[in-house]
Amino acid sequence: MKKYTSLDDITDLQALIAEARELKKNPYAFEELGKRKRLILLFFNSSLRTRLSTEKAACNLGMDVTVMNFNSDAWKLEFEDGTVMNADTSEHIKEAAQVISQYGDVIAVRAFPTLTDKAKDESEYVISNFVKYASVPVVNMESATAHPLQALADAITITELSQKKRPKVVLSWAPHPKALPHAVANSFIGMMQKMDVDLTVTHPEGYELSDATIQDTPVEYNQDAALKDADFVYVKNWSSYKDYGRVSATPETHSNWMITPEKLGNAQFMHCLPVRRNVIVADAVLDGSNSVVIEQANNRTFSAQVVLKKILENLN
Amino acid sequence: MKKYTSLDDITDLQALIAEARELKKNPYAFEELGKRKRLILLFFNSSLRTRLSTEKAACNLGMDVTVMNFNSDAWKLEFEDGTVMNADTSEHIKEAAQVISQYGDVIAVRAFPTLTDKAKDESEYVISNFVKYASVPVVNMESATAHPLQALADAITITELSQKKRPKVVLSWAPHPKALPHAVANSFIGMMQKMDVDLTVTHPEGYELSDATIQDTPVEYNQDAALKDADFVYVKNWSSYKDYGRVSATPETHSNWMITPEKLGNAQFMHCLPVRRNVIVADAVLDGSNSVVIEQANNRTFSAQVVLKKILENLN
Amino acid sequence: MKKYTSLDDITDLQALIAEARELKKNPYAFEELGKRKRLILLFFNSSLRTRLSTEKAACNLGMDVTVMNFNSDAWKLEFEDGTVMNADTSEHIKEAAQVISQYGDVIAVRAFPTLTDKAKDESEYVISNFVKYASVPVVNMESATAHPLQALADAITITELSQKKRPKVVLSWAPHPKALPHAVANSFIGMMQKMDVDLTVTHPEGYELSDATIQDTPVEYNQDAALKDADFVYVKNWSSYKDYGRVSATPETHSNWMITPEKLGNAQFMHCLPVRRNVIVADAVLDGSNSVVIEQANNRTFSAQVVLKKILENLN
Repeated sequence: MKKYTSLDDITDLQALIAEARELKKNPYAFEELGKRKRLILLFFNSSLRTRLSTEKAACNLGMDVTVMNFNSDAWKLEFEDGTVMNADTSEHIKEAAQVISQYGDVIAVRAFPTLTDKAKDESEYVISNFVKYASVPVVNMESATAHPLQALADAITITELSQKKRPKVVLSWAPHPKALPHAVANSFIGMMQKMDVDLTVTHPEGYELSDATIQDTPVEYNQDAALKDADFVYVKNWSSYKDYGRVSATPETHSNWMITPEKLGNAQFMHCLPVRRNVIVADAVLDGSNSVVIEQANNRTFSAQVVLKKILENLN
Repeated sequence: MKKYTSLDDITDLQALIAEARELKKNPYAFEELGKRKRLILLFFNSSLRTRLSTEKAACNLGMDVTVMNFNSDAWKLEFEDGTVMNADTSEHIKEAAQVISQYGDVIAVRAFPTLTDKAKDESEYVISNFVKYASVPVVNMESATAHPLQALADAITITELSQKKRPKVVLSWAPHPKALPHAVANSFIGMMQKMDVDLTVTHPEGYELSDATIQDTPVEYNQDAALKDADFVYVKNWSSYKDYGRVSATPETHSNWMITPEKLGNAQFMHCLPVRRNVIVADAVLDGSNSVVIEQANNRTFSAQVVLKKILENLN
Repeated sequence: MKKYTSLDDITDLQALIAEARELKKNPYAFEELGKRKRLILLFFNSSLRTRLSTEKAACNLGMDVTVMNFNSDAWKLEFEDGTVMNADTSEHIKEAAQVISQYGDVIAVRAFPTLTDKAKDESEYVISNFVKYASVPVVNMESATAHPLQALADAITITELSQKKRPKVVLSWAPHPKALPHAVANSFIGMMQKMDVDLTVTHPEGYELSDATIQDTPVEYNQDAALKDADFVYVKNWSSYKDYGRVSATPETHSNWMITPEKLGNAQFMHCLPVRRNVIVADAVLDGSNSVVIEQANNRTFSAQVVLKKILENLN
């Protein structure tokens, strides 16, 4: 693997999941592989799971890890070509990416979207410029439009927990008071489209995702109909894509989309976390036995570890 | 040791101090014990000594260490049960504590009190919720009402430096321009009550500590009388407990409580640091030969190391 | 080496450069030297290259590394002697430096100048107080008036890339919208004065550096004349030294000082980075084959590594 910035970097998903599950059983089996290799984690946004799981994954492989909160620790970056840099940006991505490549063997980047400039977000101007100018592999720790490490952890979780050959998986929109990105939804859908599952997406009118994401996946505006006989219910908010970044004036507008035990039925409940209790999902679901969110978070470690392993094998 | 959140977690104090002093002589004697074990340090407040000493202690035991400044790096946490999380908190402690437990083998937490809501502070809502929901051991790096790692370092220091079987130890309040917590005073008093020392607490009227802390320890409002023939003088400010969080309008009100060489006499001067010079204590004391504050800070490493060692031994 | 806070700490520059180049070929040759030794990096200001290269250098030597952003993580420091600390500073450098020395074997500090108080900046009150009170070696990661790790990387770069026995090296001032320190210029000039190069400094009138820096180095106000037949052109902005910290009202005033391919000719282009494109230097220079800024940044690792190696050898 030369990089992991989108699901397109996966060549054999089933083999990758199987390898991740092997690593989960024997996390230290390859602790010599990353010796003298340094992973640099660059955060332009907050992180809990992604940071801690990726650090642990790298350490399991024997790598050294450095964490930088780019906004507070370093210099404000310029991403435009040809700019006269006489305003507030101090360093161009061209230099930054090349320079960081001198000090690390793998660079991982988290950079959320603006949610105000759709074209800029869809250009993935942060992570794509890191890929363009870095001379070492780049890993996406959630970019403007994709969260492929989360999607891989989700695929591992469903593979581990599914009782059926072809489970029914529903991605259900949920209300949220703030405008959230589409990255998790995009990558989850993309991942499920690669797997042998029966996928349905459900959301209120106005929350349609991009055609590039949905492709031929069925979309159902009636949540109850969508949830019927589901094996896995993945819940996630996203802001409007068409009316880009808009969030319904009040979450109360769609409060009936919150997942309750009645809606969940016998399905297993998934969420990438952090999750707002009693807005996205009722306490009784999260505290109940059908919630697999903690195991899903645990699988973030092995999602990151298998990706780093494939990248390290390609370096050596 | 299953956790270290209060002095109640100590079963045999003398043995623990003796073991810490052995670690001080041979800090790397157990550097295999923590191999492949990860300590996650979570700071909700500033830290210098606690962070650096705990990191060093963990490394001496071969552990990997991750430091997170929770407020800036991660998501704002909700601690109330049953809340509808539609305001400014993004993640509930229930998920956060369980999730962090997936990525670390021991979690250490620093969370200062509000000093405005006594009941909330005394519930220790941050650290007690980490203990409740984490599936790994929790260490207190100073909570709303307790600083047991500091108190253990203090006990080590007094044991090392005492020339008497039963030294006279005085905890003397000192002026400070801001409202400070009661945690250090509470834990120091609790620790001294477990040791074979002659303890006196002295402070101006209005700065009485809780009955639960004082128990039957003598309290003297006359500082000079209290300090007479002291072997160790531990100086520390705290804000009012009764008139919760209040600080005297100006430090000048109590400026005569500042420790000077005359007041100290031949006693050894202790303070947990950071200390405000010429407010809490005169330069001449800190710069004189009776100050043991640097050795006290050094003992923070071995206080943390012995606690982590006991916790690791219980894990394995 | 007992410390590295200024170029005066170098005893044999040629030997040091040669040793750095050996480390570049065999970065892990001394990875046992730093075992059980801890480097504490203290940042009072932003950093990208310095932080990442110093961390890598220390890891190459087997050291453990801790990074603290002092302003956000720890307590506000007092540097004045005899102060009554009843205002906004919480800890005196006397305690801080002694305490940090309990937890680390080497302390590295970055502290930029005020650019408003020349006497205070020239006293190097931050780093000189760390040297005064720390009980372990101190490394300068850019102080008020000096950046000796950068200058050593520059010396390595020129030594590596020079095609001549005595190359012509020009330090050329460049425009910048904000007031910048003199540290890089000071240390670069000081370093070149120690090397067998033909050094010229060029800048507009009003941007004269201190006499202590310039000594007998030729200064030329005509940039074109200075640049003629240069082998290396090192470009850097600094604010006025005489009219301390002043920056020309608009960068446009001196925009003709920006380095272009025409001005550069066949010389190699150097800059310490971060660099503002199309203000300091034209895109065509940075993107052209005469720019050596990335290799220069790479040499920061070996500059730091050779310094840490000399310090570690002196500790053992």
